[in-house]
Amino acid sequence: MPRKHAKEMSKDEFRSAMKENPIVILPIGAMEEHGSHLPLGTDTFEVEYVVDRLADRLNAIVLPTVPYGECRSTYNFPGTISLSFDTLKSIATDIISEVLRHKGRRMLIISGHAGGNHMVALKLAAQEAVRQNRDLKIMVLSDYDLVPDFKEAKIPEWDGHAGMAETSRMLNIRPDISRKGRQATKPKSPEHMILPDPERLFPSGIMGDPRKASPELGSRIDDFILRRLVAMIRKNLD
Amino acid sequence: MPRKHAKEMSKDEFRSAMKENPIVILPIGAMEEHGSHLPLGTDTFEVEYVVDRLADRLNAIVLPTVPYGECRSTYNFPGTISLSFDTLKSIATDIISEVLRHKGRRMLIISGHAGGNHMVALKLAAQEAVRQNRDLKIMVLSDYDLVPDFKEAKIPEWDGHAGMAETSRMLNIRPDISRKGRQATKPKSPEHMILPDPERLFPSGIMGDPRKASPELGSRIDDFILRRLVAMIRKNLD
Amino acid sequence: MPRKHAKEMSKDEFRSAMKENPIVILPIGAMEEHGSHLPLGTDTFEVEYVVDRLADRLNAIVLPTVPYGECRSTYNFPGTISLSFDTLKSIATDIISEVLRHKGRRMLIISGHAGGNHMVALKLAAQEAVRQNRDLKIMVLSDYDLVPDFKEAKIPEWDGHAGMAETSRMLNIRPDISRKGRQATKPKSPEHMILPDPERLFPSGIMGDPRKASPELGSRIDDFILRRLVAMIRKNLD
Amino acid sequence: MPRKHAKEMSKDEFRSAMKENPIVILPIGAMEEHGSHLPLGTDTFEVEYVVDRLADRLNAIVLPTVPYGECRSTYNFPGTISLSFDTLKSIATDIISEVLRHKGRRMLIISGHAGGNHMVALKLAAQEAVRQNRDLKIMVLSDYDLVPDFKEAKIPEWDGHAGMAETSRMLNIRPDISRKGRQATKPKSPEHMILPDPERLFPSGIMGDPRKASPELGSRIDDFILRRLVAMIRKNLD
Amino acid sequence: MPRKHAKEMSKDEFRSAMKENPIVILPIGAMEEHGSHLPLGTDTFEVEYVVDRLADRLNAIVLPTVPYGECRSTYNFPGTISLSFDTLKSIATDIISEVLRHKGRRMLIISGHAGGNHMVALKLAAQEAVRQNRDLKIMVLSDYDLVPDFKEAKIPEWDGHAGMAETSRMLNIRPDISRKGRQATKPKSPEHMILPDPERLFPSGIMGDPRKASPELGSRIDDFILRRLVAMIRKNLD
Amino acid sequence: MPRKHAKEMSKDEFRSAMKENPIVILPIGAMEEHGSHLPLGTDTFEVEYVVDRLADRLNAIVLPTVPYGECRSTYNFPGTISLSFDTLKSIATDIISEVLRHKGRRMLIISGHAGGNHMVALKLAAQEAVRQNRDLKIMVLSDYDLVPDFKEAKIPEWDGHAGMAETSRMLNIRPDISRKGRQATKPKSPEHMILPDPERLFPSGIMGDPRKASPELGSRIDDFILRRLVAMIRKNLD
Repeated sequence: MPRKHAKEMSKDEFRSAMKENPIVILPIGAMEEHGSHLPLGTDTFEVEYVVDRLADRLNAIVLPTVPYGECRSTYNFPGTISLSFDTLKSIATDIISEVLRHKGRRMLIISGHAGGNHMVALKLAAQEAVRQNRDLKIMVLSDYDLVPDFKEAKIPEWDGHAGMAETSRMLNIRPDISRKGRQATKPKSPEHMILPDPERLFPSGIMGDPRKASPELGSRIDDFILRRLVAMIRKNLD
Repeated sequence: MPRKHAKEMSKDEFRSAMKENPIVILPIGAMEEHGSHLPLGTDTFEVEYVVDRLADRLNAIVLPTVPYGECRSTYNFPGTISLSFDTLKSIATDIISEVLRHKGRRMLIISGHAGGNHMVALKLAAQEAVRQNRDLKIMVLSDYDLVPDFKEAKIPEWDGHAGMAETSRMLNIRPDISRKGRQATKPKSPEHMILPDPERLFPSGIMGDPRKASPELGSRIDDFILRRLVAMIRKNLD
Repeated sequence: MPRKHAKEMSKDEFRSAMKENPIVILPIGAMEEHGSHLPLGTDTFEVEYVVDRLADRLNAIVLPTVPYGECRSTYNFPGTISLSFDTLKSIATDIISEVLRHKGRRMLIISGHAGGNHMVALKLAAQEAVRQNRDLKIMVLSDYDLVPDFKEAKIPEWDGHAGMAETSRMLNIRPDISRKGRQATKPKSPEHMILPDPERLFPSGIMGDPRKASPELGSRIDDFILRRLVAMIRKNLD
Repeated sequence: MPRKHAKEMSKDEFRSAMKENPIVILPIGAMEEHGSHLPLGTDTFEVEYVVDRLADRLNAIVLPTVPYGECRSTYNFPGTISLSFDTLKSIATDIISEVLRHKGRRMLIISGHAGGNHMVALKLAAQEAVRQNRDLKIMVLSDYDLVPDFKEAKIPEWDGHAGMAETSRMLNIRPDISRKGRQATKPKSPEHMILPDPERLFPSGIMGDPRKASPELGSRIDDFILRRLVAMIRKNLD
Repeated sequence: MPRKHAKEMSKDEFRSAMKENPIVILPIGAMEEHGSHLPLGTDTFEVEYVVDRLADRLNAIVLPTVPYGECRSTYNFPGTISLSFDTLKSIATDIISEVLRHKGRRMLIISGHAGGNHMVALKLAAQEAVRQNRDLKIMVLSDYDLVPDFKEAKIPEWDGHAGMAETSRMLNIRPDISRKGRQATKPKSPEHMILPDPERLFPSGIMGDPRKASPELGSRIDDFILRRLVAMIRKNLD
Repeated sequence: MPRKHAKEMSKDEFRSAMKENPIVILPIGAMEEHGSHLPLGTDTFEVEYVVDRLADRLNAIVLPTVPYGECRSTYNFPGTISLSFDTLKSIATDIISEVLRHKGRRMLIISGHAGGNHMVALKLAAQEAVRQNRDLKIMVLSDYDLVPDFKEAKIPEWDGHAGMAETSRMLNIRPDISRKGRQATKPKSPEHMILPDPERLFPSGIMGDPRKASPELGSRIDDFILRRLVAMIRKNLD
């Protein structure tokens, strides 16, 4: 089976692979507090799990994961290591530009972290690229964006960061460093306020109910994400 | 009655007013295509209408409206005049910094335009300000963010840009330059794709059904927005 | 009569208007201390008054006024809200670029504020634009630049900010919020010094003698400015 | 044994670990052509191998590897994906700043790639940090900087990129995706010239003689690097 | 006699000299077309001549001349080598900052070139510095700003770039590379237009009448400038 | 003999000279501590001496020297006046761009200062230029880079900044302001550490042994540098 991870390819293998007009996947992770029960690299582990499987089903090249993102609401917790908005945007801008230089014309930027600023940084980079390169097909999303469509199990609407779905996924993906979590938190944010200390709204570092998480549920969510991604890519990037 | 618009105050009136720790309101508009039936300055007219009334009910100072925003999906239509993301962010950063210099400690940045990039540009400026000035209370939102909560009439869930709600509001606010609109468009966007030409998804420039708009409905929506804003501000900025 | 303010046009009206190769006017105001007798938005009111009448006499489209500028000597007074030099330049750069995108080839950037830095920020943006777009005809000035040529009445040579001419114009334009002013100040600046506190040279916030102002004089000055602008535009932008 | 990789720690584990004033290690890799016999991620694999072992011998926390660098001489080969100088510097600046925010006071930035620009980008970030934070102890180097000191075997002085030493190391570290290499290249660069096409000096993508590489030699070099690093860190960062 | 040029001092001499709180002079020149009769470095030669004599009369340290400036109207002539506005501003910002670091508290930035953009770049740097360092006394001017006050001989009001006064000065300062000039040009600029090709208004590269220049006049102008500078500095920087 | 210094040429002479496709030389100096025995402008004096003689032997135009550089290890000594990395890079970028605009296609950027950051700033500017202008031939080096090849006398390998070779050169070039130096310093830097206070490693400001310097040696080194430069330029820039 041919290699899918660009970092494992030689220059010749890369050149050959690019000739097939593959989907070039850029995974984006994060170093971010995820409660006391999940690791700081949760978003990285999730996106790498998904992308690994995705690349098996498509003609794809996987670029090395950017393991840092822009983190806002968890900023003040121990362990969050955030890039600035501009740095993250520059990374995406540079890498898209390099993919275009190597004649890539189909790209997927997929992020394990789904913060509002973070996603806009990635999208701005992609928007500027398509304005200059109208033949570039590029999709930008977080795998987390797909979770609300998962209806096979009852996940509270307010479940989110380090909650039931995310904890389940991590129990599936990295059970060695993930636990169920002991408390639920439903943060009640003062609407539209820009706070210097959003962490006081969820001192547990959790937004959701990770007590109900299970590896089985995680596995089903991961499968669901994978199926949805494959369908969307087949529809839009082909 | 004391003046509320800063541009109409003398330096002495401004100084006096600032001593009362007023809510300093920065309205943000846009120059953006809004179908064939609404004017390019729709977002500006809307936000100025709301802010004018809001300032009557609160201890507030209204700064001059920034009449340009960052526009993405309507970018390629005639009449859209968009600032870059960085320019918009710099404007907000500069003005917040000036308000802080004049000892303002309560701010509302309210935008008539609700684009994703646009709102993040404003929020980033506010986030950086609160990190440096922890006693600054600042709220950033689009008046449009409040419309989905309006349940007194049946507005389609997919109604949006230049649609039923927005057209109704403009029929209430500027009937002289607004019309009902002759067609509905429900754009079907390829999920998560970053397109060079999003306008092809809604060639009418409309996302929604402006045929059902009415000034009465607009008036009720505007009243609803106003009530919600007053309540939120009283709760969070006091 | 066709509309002249772009914000009141629909996208279709804008497109039609642009086909006539109109003069696209970008008015720039300011939020700046103007003594105790004039409002902070003086520069905005003045430029909008002029531009409104100008657009009646020419094939012109008026863009929304940028109501903030870069203010240096009045910086430390209450009420001055200044953009940074770079922000102002970016605004002008972005808007010129958008006008070019919509095929505008004749532009007038006219500012109510005439500060040295402020005007250079606008001119730099225009200079970079003409280097890249040699068919762009663009004029950049402050309406204030024309006042010294007004010889119908005796205005002291040292009259300036919030002085006799400016106060007269405001008594003509916005008598409801303008007064004559009670004192004259002839600031004596230490030549070529860059001061942290230039306001100490004119604690009144006035440079000139607003005691002699009158609405009649203001009206004549405004008419003079208008005639000069029309003549210059006919000569240079046609 | 406590975890050493920050991405595998929970927020609580991270907080505890930081209290011990550990050496915070930031590994920097690259995506860069390395001949036909080595993978594009060679610099990443090398630095991760070293850092993993290093962290076993010291009180250290390993941050996620930045898997991209700034690549100049290999820029035009297939597979090189280079960040701009400014992006790389911003990444290092942001992460150092975050480590300082979390009270880290001992840092090692170690890069698998040793390009001149690349290393200066990292050093500039560190230099600015120490000027602002005089109690920060920080070391910045490439593991490659230590290879010339290795005298246990005869490595040609001109051996470098993808050559005898680097290939040997990769045969030790990732034998599954590395091969010996079939040709030697001793590039003869026109002194001090800045070329648009430096790749023409070594069309093989190799600077050195990878034909003589062996996993045994690689193992000895890696051990040597490790010993040297431990010694330097004990001496300078304690 | 103690040295006045910083570049000729040793570190110890510099430290001693700085203890006397000298006036630190930063001369700014330019590389700019000056007709067919004057050299490209005219502004540099002029400012260095003045500064050299100035330093003999004051307690001053002269920094090395920045021999490039921002040139706008002469941009398209052969020989003009212009820095961008931002580069020039950065140079001034950096050097002011360094002077402050070495405890300099009195500065004169004097430019041989007097272009509008150019002077604002220098002033902006100084303005930002005084806002942060209120004990810094700094003067920014062009020696050319003082020429209009010279009334001992009849110089046409419209005389300027490479004209009667400047040519006279150069005949005094560098007679070996300066000539009288053979033609007068009185450029008639379309008012307030921003032109891509301002050089067409004065194809000779001259604005003024260099036919009437003489070394005697130049000597008197230079003496006048020197006296005025000494007086201003004594008054304002002491 | 035709002029070689661009600042002494008229616009017409410059235009003529450029038609011959000369080597355009940009000398870069520095303001930097050089012990108690050498002047702060040592790097400037050295590079100007070399460039002056170089231009006599080649078809060359010499641009004005940039007399400031980026200085890192000497930063905290009295007299060092350092530009930031970005400012220095911008200067080089701007000037290269101007040379290209005037149709220069052969360039030499030669620096008297050889700091690591400093040289990379210059090289980055040149690298970006050649990527955009593949017909530009450009060489970037420090004259100091050539000294280690000088084998006619025994200079200690660790000799460097203000040491035997540099002091000898200055005794040759500017004996009026240079002395032999009274002490040798062999700094022992903690390897790869980024220090806030590198000056503590060589409190004399010297790295080397200037006690053994002589003008004769300096003259021979300068001749050697000159010969090497001429040879390299003939080989690579013709």
